[in-house]
Amino acid sequence: MPVSLGELAVRFGCELRGDPDRCIERVASLANADERSLAFLANPRYRPQLAETHAAAVVLSGRDAAGCPASLLLCANPYATYARIATLLHPPPPLAPGVHATALIGAGARIDPSAEIGAYSSVAPGVSVGARAFVGPHCQLAAGVTLAEDVRLVARVTLGQGVQVGARSVLQPGVVIGADGFGFAPEKGTWLKVPQVGSVRLGADVEVGANTTIDRGAIEDTVIEEGVKLDNLIMIAHNVRIGAHTAIAACTGISGSTSIGRRCMIGGMVGFAGHLSIADDVVITAKSSVSHSIANAGVYSSTLPTEEAHAWRRLVARFKRSGLLEERLRRLERAAGIKGAPMEAPEEGHD
Amino acid sequence: MPVSLGELAVRFGCELRGDPDRCIERVASLANADERSLAFLANPRYRPQLAETHAAAVVLSGRDAAGCPASLLLCANPYATYARIATLLHPPPPLAPGVHATALIGAGARIDPSAEIGAYSSVAPGVSVGARAFVGPHCQLAAGVTLAEDVRLVARVTLGQGVQVGARSVLQPGVVIGADGFGFAPEKGTWLKVPQVGSVRLGADVEVGANTTIDRGAIEDTVIEEGVKLDNLIMIAHNVRIGAHTAIAACTGISGSTSIGRRCMIGGMVGFAGHLSIADDVVITAKSSVSHSIANAGVYSSTLPTEEAHAWRRLVARFKRSGLLEERLRRLERAAGIKGAPMEAPEEGHD
Amino acid sequence: MPVSLGELAVRFGCELRGDPDRCIERVASLANADERSLAFLANPRYRPQLAETHAAAVVLSGRDAAGCPASLLLCANPYATYARIATLLHPPPPLAPGVHATALIGAGARIDPSAEIGAYSSVAPGVSVGARAFVGPHCQLAAGVTLAEDVRLVARVTLGQGVQVGARSVLQPGVVIGADGFGFAPEKGTWLKVPQVGSVRLGADVEVGANTTIDRGAIEDTVIEEGVKLDNLIMIAHNVRIGAHTAIAACTGISGSTSIGRRCMIGGMVGFAGHLSIADDVVITAKSSVSHSIANAGVYSSTLPTEEAHAWRRLVARFKRSGLLEERLRRLERAAGIKGAPMEAPEEGHD
Repeated sequence: MPVSLGELAVRFGCELRGDPDRCIERVASLANADERSLAFLANPRYRPQLAETHAAAVVLSGRDAAGCPASLLLCANPYATYARIATLLHPPPPLAPGVHATALIGAGARIDPSAEIGAYSSVAPGVSVGARAFVGPHCQLAAGVTLAEDVRLVARVTLGQGVQVGARSVLQPGVVIGADGFGFAPEKGTWLKVPQVGSVRLGADVEVGANTTIDRGAIEDTVIEEGVKLDNLIMIAHNVRIGAHTAIAACTGISGSTSIGRRCMIGGMVGFAGHLSIADDVVITAKSSVSHSIANAGVYSSTLPTEEAHAWRRLVARFKRSGLLEERLRRLERAAGIKGAPMEAPEEGHD
Repeated sequence: MPVSLGELAVRFGCELRGDPDRCIERVASLANADERSLAFLANPRYRPQLAETHAAAVVLSGRDAAGCPASLLLCANPYATYARIATLLHPPPPLAPGVHATALIGAGARIDPSAEIGAYSSVAPGVSVGARAFVGPHCQLAAGVTLAEDVRLVARVTLGQGVQVGARSVLQPGVVIGADGFGFAPEKGTWLKVPQVGSVRLGADVEVGANTTIDRGAIEDTVIEEGVKLDNLIMIAHNVRIGAHTAIAACTGISGSTSIGRRCMIGGMVGFAGHLSIADDVVITAKSSVSHSIANAGVYSSTLPTEEAHAWRRLVARFKRSGLLEERLRRLERAAGIKGAPMEAPEEGHD
Repeated sequence: MPVSLGELAVRFGCELRGDPDRCIERVASLANADERSLAFLANPRYRPQLAETHAAAVVLSGRDAAGCPASLLLCANPYATYARIATLLHPPPPLAPGVHATALIGAGARIDPSAEIGAYSSVAPGVSVGARAFVGPHCQLAAGVTLAEDVRLVARVTLGQGVQVGARSVLQPGVVIGADGFGFAPEKGTWLKVPQVGSVRLGADVEVGANTTIDRGAIEDTVIEEGVKLDNLIMIAHNVRIGAHTAIAACTGISGSTSIGRRCMIGGMVGFAGHLSIADDVVITAKSSVSHSIANAGVYSSTLPTEEAHAWRRLVARFKRSGLLEERLRRLERAAGIKGAPMEAPEEGHD
């Protein structure tokens, strides 16, 4: 499906510098593009590749235009414009509306005729599947699940009882939404399972990455608001709430009843304790441990960057004898006749 | 299935303060309960909601009884009592004994007539499924798998050859038990796969959370004792042993041949090195790194709580130049005529 | 399939000390072996068990031969030799070539007649399955997937469009390869999905552990070179490249476009930032945070070992007031007339 540069410029509001009749067939990286490809430049890291590219055209901002041999599509947000052009050139496969012969559809399920239900999927009684929704192969939709229009379950997605998925949301393979939350009451040295009677509600335009799990609420629902983007292998515990347009990188875990604000950006492998409240517009760097609520927007971290291992072990050893350092300081202060350390903080830790 | 407060009080040994004929239909949170709902109070965090609740009844302990407008069910362990009442009011869906028409049952598999095998499950030859066990849709049970009575595989659970699951255990969707352990012998710069010929044994009353994996043993079995509760996305490597009634939060990983004691509580995203021995009744805080054996009960931690990012980076920089601090201390000590630092610890780190 | 010690010695190039006609039926641990079992000794941790073993024979190196009551198979690399013998004694189940009656095969898929396609698997049009490949039950192979000869998808593996798997690679249950990378362009406070048009290429002899995910490339492919071994629950983001014969332990995450060298050994639960370049022969200890490129072979760490929790909290508190310590040092230096601290490093942190 080739498209001319002129059409792309008009359609996506770019300034074109080059031949409007030149046709584009696909997207490519600056380094590997050919004369039928469109590339883009958004990350300054790749600017050195600009002069050498063989792309037919490059999407970029005006300040990067100099010295590029290709045709240019100038715009304010090259990455977003690239995303739109790439979607045009590489559309998802078209739906084949209808129910596959091997799919099992329970009594009373309402499947919109424009939706597609894939091979070996099982849809329980009372499920509702909206217009143009895609349920890929090997999905399981338990009773009461609701998929809004244009939802896309790529393949092998499991949705527990009553899970609601908002319009245009995309769930990657292996996702489990609505498994039981981790609720157990201690009693005489053993654990008694607490029924998890809430469910999970996902807003519109949510993305859930491969093998991510979102547990059902203990009593009320776990809630993922509109526009939230979740990467792979993330764990969202029962009764968590994630505010709109927050993005979370892979392998992060959020403990029960914690509430994350809107427009937050959470790095990978971050851990959140339970029952916290995180403000809007908070950024957490990768691998941090969030053990307290955060009341104000800003960037927070407890990331410890790697060192050469022998040097690292010396640092850790020194850290672990830091009490001796303080003791030596105090002795010196006494010897120097300095009474009382300045600005002494109380000897106690967080949490 | 409404139940009267009087019946609940008798059945669960509570002291009732209120109308014994009042009927309860469901559980709810204190904040959102209505006149047909039962709530509970166990976590002091929610006590302020007590005075405002519209619940028909609240399960709580005697010391919290004052000032609650609802009927009261007084007991010593409100959370456990709530769990039992919630199970009564919200029972799991009843079994439909028998084998779904699309399930594949291998030769010689023994399926108790009271068990249910769901759609598109495949049960290999020689599998044994006990009374009232539930095998949900899309499960795979390899040869020699044994499920005791009342086991519940919610959906899409994979059990490798010879895996044994004890009575009443619950396995959430996406669980993989009995995949090959990560065993490779180094040889001339490459890795040679070591056959993993052990299996996995789960005791009674074990819970395994969504997408958790438990690998088969290299030679002998990986063992999860009775009453162990595992959250989502946990990794249990080959030949690990987890003692009875230990609970482990999400995203934790336990390396090969490590043995964890009984009644331990392990936080989320904790990492255990291999070949360790952890005592009974050990608590590990979230995100800690356990790289040595722990011989005594107690609480252990290496959690680093998050700070504002600029402040954090200054702390890390200071940490990394801590050798300079010691040097400056030594110089001061020499200048002050103090010979030899007190209580000097050897300059070496933990491994 | 019993094998004599004489045959084993010849076949695997060992020096035999013992009866060549003694027959072995299975492998076992030193502690639990019986007179039909073969054990091995490679880890010095288990040397004390040698004198007490009831094994028929033990595979070990010459330096460990003294004091063992069993027959001996002496060799230079006992673990590798054990792996080969164990593979002989415990071979994977034989293939049943052909397509299971319930498997769905798309138009134009080329399935080698010696391959086996398991129950309820779905194979899209245009897929190619090589000689003696095994596609276990409940797998999904999207359009254009290519499996080389002797590939083994154990069960319930999902391969997205165009994924290529090299010869003899083994993919454990729950693996997802080729899900969309986490690519979103920020625009006016929301996120715009960036089509992920690359795919994933796995070389020969790769192992991928249970529930691990490898995302498709944004434009070009994500690449896992030959001989790479990945444990369970690992996240490989789009456009990562992992060099040949690198081994990565469970729960590790690698962010987008990071390139890892050859023959690296990465511990469990390590996090890598994006766009990094890691040299060949790098070792990273478990739970480290790699936030910068590493140019030289060596061992790197930011692991913080666990302490008793009260002691740990005091250490963290002291760490957080380390600025006060420096202030006190400066005051002492001023009082002692020492001008300027020696070797002062600039007050800034690593990113």
